[in-house]
Amino acid sequence: MENCFYCEKGEKLNSLMIKITELSNSIVYLNRNQKHKGRSIVTFKGHKKEWFDLTPEENKGFFADTALVAKALNNVFKPGKINYATFGDTVPHTHIHVVPKYEGGFQWGKFFDDSEKEFLTDDQYKDLVSKIAAEIEKLK
Amino acid sequence: MENCFYCEKGEKLNSLMIKITELSNSIVYLNRNQKHKGRSIVTFKGHKKEWFDLTPEENKGFFADTALVAKALNNVFKPGKINYATFGDTVPHTHIHVVPKYEGGFQWGKFFDDSEKEFLTDDQYKDLVSKIAAEIEKLK
Repeated sequence: MENCFYCEKGEKLNSLMIKITELSNSIVYLNRNQKHKGRSIVTFKGHKKEWFDLTPEENKGFFADTALVAKALNNVFKPGKINYATFGDTVPHTHIHVVPKYEGGFQWGKFFDDSEKEFLTDDQYKDLVSKIAAEIEKLK
Repeated sequence: MENCFYCEKGEKLNSLMIKITELSNSIVYLNRNQKHKGRSIVTFKGHKKEWFDLTPEENKGFFADTALVAKALNNVFKPGKINYATFGDTVPHTHIHVVPKYEGGFQWGKFFDDSEKEFLTDDQYKDLVSKIAAEIEKLK
């Protein structure tokens, strides 16, 4: 897709990451930002925006690939825990940051997100819960 | 598992989230922190630490559940993009935060993580890439 650096595979992508390998449903990159040692990115081969835009078969294959990459990182770097994140608000091409975290190391035990929390009333929660539950029922 | 609030399903869990529904491989909760409207959590039913600890069948089912929940949130709240995150350094029970983001809204276009980046030399990158690639080959 045009204007998507994951599809273009040009200079922009190269400035951010380095190709490690290709799997059945994904291309695997090392993130140049190595604040977390071993931080990698698993990108879906096609241009699909949301996880739910993948077919069941693609979903299965992509997350099998991601689990395999995480296991490889775990074996190589022996982190305390692996974190995973998909953002891509302005780069909507399905990809997952696979981020090894190290006990006592940078951001250990922390969310990336340390912004102020926002709580609602019980009624507001009830309303949200019932809306989401109804929609899940519909989709099941 | 003891000392895991996702397994215990007691007060601690209740203070953080509200049950929405149960799917084949997961329990779905609304995060009480609603800074991002619709923010939910999909938790794996059993106590497994890493994504790669799930069997292929569990992996398939769990990510199908997560995609379904994301689609439901997308239908209900019409966000610009859905973000996903697994942390759990100190709560190692497989779960995924499903976070609707809204164009022009809070943290739109931003990573949760805005910490300073850390770059390596080309040789250091080469070394990491070859180690990870070799391990992936072994696991394929």
